[in-house]
Amino acid sequence: MPTIQVHTTPPYSIRIQHGWPVLPSLQATEVYIVSDSNVGELYLGEVHGLFAHAGIRQYGQTFPAGESSKHLGTVQSLLEGFAEFGLTRSGLVVALGGGVVGDVAGFAASIWLRGVPFLQFPTTLLAMVDSSIGGKTGVDLDQGKNLVGSFHQPSGVFANVDTLRTLPQEYIEDGLAEMLKTCVLQDASLFERIVTKPSVALEPESIARCAEIKANIVEQDPTEKGVRKLLNLGHTAAHAIELASNFQISHGHAVAIGMAMVARAGFSAGITSAKCRNAILHGLEATGLGTRSPYPVADLMAAMKRDKKRAGGTISLIVPRELGQCEILPMPLEQLEAFYEAAND
Amino acid sequence: MPTIQVHTTPPYSIRIQHGWPVLPSLQATEVYIVSDSNVGELYLGEVHGLFAHAGIRQYGQTFPAGESSKHLGTVQSLLEGFAEFGLTRSGLVVALGGGVVGDVAGFAASIWLRGVPFLQFPTTLLAMVDSSIGGKTGVDLDQGKNLVGSFHQPSGVFANVDTLRTLPQEYIEDGLAEMLKTCVLQDASLFERIVTKPSVALEPESIARCAEIKANIVEQDPTEKGVRKLLNLGHTAAHAIELASNFQISHGHAVAIGMAMVARAGFSAGITSAKCRNAILHGLEATGLGTRSPYPVADLMAAMKRDKKRAGGTISLIVPRELGQCEILPMPLEQLEAFYEAAND
Repeated sequence: MPTIQVHTTPPYSIRIQHGWPVLPSLQATEVYIVSDSNVGELYLGEVHGLFAHAGIRQYGQTFPAGESSKHLGTVQSLLEGFAEFGLTRSGLVVALGGGVVGDVAGFAASIWLRGVPFLQFPTTLLAMVDSSIGGKTGVDLDQGKNLVGSFHQPSGVFANVDTLRTLPQEYIEDGLAEMLKTCVLQDASLFERIVTKPSVALEPESIARCAEIKANIVEQDPTEKGVRKLLNLGHTAAHAIELASNFQISHGHAVAIGMAMVARAGFSAGITSAKCRNAILHGLEATGLGTRSPYPVADLMAAMKRDKKRAGGTISLIVPRELGQCEILPMPLEQLEAFYEAAND
Repeated sequence: MPTIQVHTTPPYSIRIQHGWPVLPSLQATEVYIVSDSNVGELYLGEVHGLFAHAGIRQYGQTFPAGESSKHLGTVQSLLEGFAEFGLTRSGLVVALGGGVVGDVAGFAASIWLRGVPFLQFPTTLLAMVDSSIGGKTGVDLDQGKNLVGSFHQPSGVFANVDTLRTLPQEYIEDGLAEMLKTCVLQDASLFERIVTKPSVALEPESIARCAEIKANIVEQDPTEKGVRKLLNLGHTAAHAIELASNFQISHGHAVAIGMAMVARAGFSAGITSAKCRNAILHGLEATGLGTRSPYPVADLMAAMKRDKKRAGGTISLIVPRELGQCEILPMPLEQLEAFYEAAND
């Protein structure tokens, strides 16, 4: 039962295990559980049960599953729910679900009464290895993904890997993409093991290793002033691809394509080694992920230039050198298109 | 030209003066000025001019003046404006106006790209002495005031006291109420001088003194875990009165009534001295402020119990002992109504 301590302010722990956790003694006076229509039906009752033994007043609210719920309207409906329920500063929000649930519920918790604590109960592979960790919360606007949000660290992350059994293959692949991304940053060995045998990714130890790498990076830089930018490997193009597809291409699949694009472009620019580029492209294909954008680079530019990692006229691109070793490359906006267009095969 | 240094994270300075400030050299790549329909018409052009000499790309957006704009819909329209304008993390939001503008624009800045810097240009007495300082931002829900928001410190506060000349008397009184509240907390001498001659309140030195007291308290406790709660003197009843009046009774006028209520109730409970209670009631009347709620205490209870200062079954009431000396009184919810009802004359 791997447990990871995250030394943010305040510190918290991540537990990854088969089955639901026995919760530590809670100070909370009330609990508001947020989930989506898919996950809520499967697991909301079980999670209510975890708090029931403590006799804490609780309520559950679900919203329609999917990225299309990740907007301010959903946040407002949660906030109104908190108000009706009477959630106080000594209460607790629980996010039960995948990345959308964690992002939306965490954001609502961060702005309710100027911030109340929340717990993450991630039920997707992607949420377990990535989105539940690090305190990034938020929603999309019509103009782009994740444009609105806050940094709000969870007070704990509790992942029951048994929930992955009900997860469709497409969602497993989303998580695989983020795991491979994490391995490209810092663990070439796990990268090779997952590519050789993808089921390795679902073992609690593999999930915990990726969660640990992410947590370590976040600890060093909670608000993404520097090293945390590394986690955005593949993400600048990915956000633009998701938007261009009207979110028909999911986040993980878009990250895989974005990572492939930056590996090819990085090789053309003389940064990424041929071996590294080939390993990334092969690894993505071997795990069923895509490596080609269905949209020309020119069509992705407007959205890429609105990326949050832009500061003034420069954007921070993350480019791999070797497996397990990447760099932050400040790129003037006017060179961005040429960088991606120069990618040859 | 009083200048106050505020040692929050990050630190910032408050400047209170006649005329607009010469701005320090700005790193910002673009500036987005937010104002309301009243203030924008009078001063938006002048404030644009302050940034024009620096050649910074800028845009101004106004929304209808008044508390009824302090909701999530206004925040969403600002966020969409930021997106259309292309506001980056190296940009700057400027809040030009009273408390509503500062609260709404500051909140939008705090959640745009998970937080961009903002400057306060307060144009009301209340905003100069109170709401522009301390980093509380947010909006109302139908269920109550300020239920949604964040702590986001401004990067600077620039008050041009000449703007008070265009401020209606009713708004001057709103500011007077918060100034008297501040004096009841920590400056009996200024309290007496303002009560004797209310125009003293409009002198830059008086405004600066109240701003300084507030800033000192905020420095000690930026996120209101302890001593900052003192600033809520009169506010628990005030928020309920504002809500009951459908915001026809303004914040400052409601604070005056709330302060009178707690002074009378505190006297009945043996906490507030007769001299202190009498000074507060006399001071409020002498400056044209009210001391009586138009609504019975029973009608205010539901909203008071939803106050943010509640934690579980207890609410933190602020009760004066003497002028310049107040205490935080933890009050079980079930005793709250009796505390207020016991107030005799």
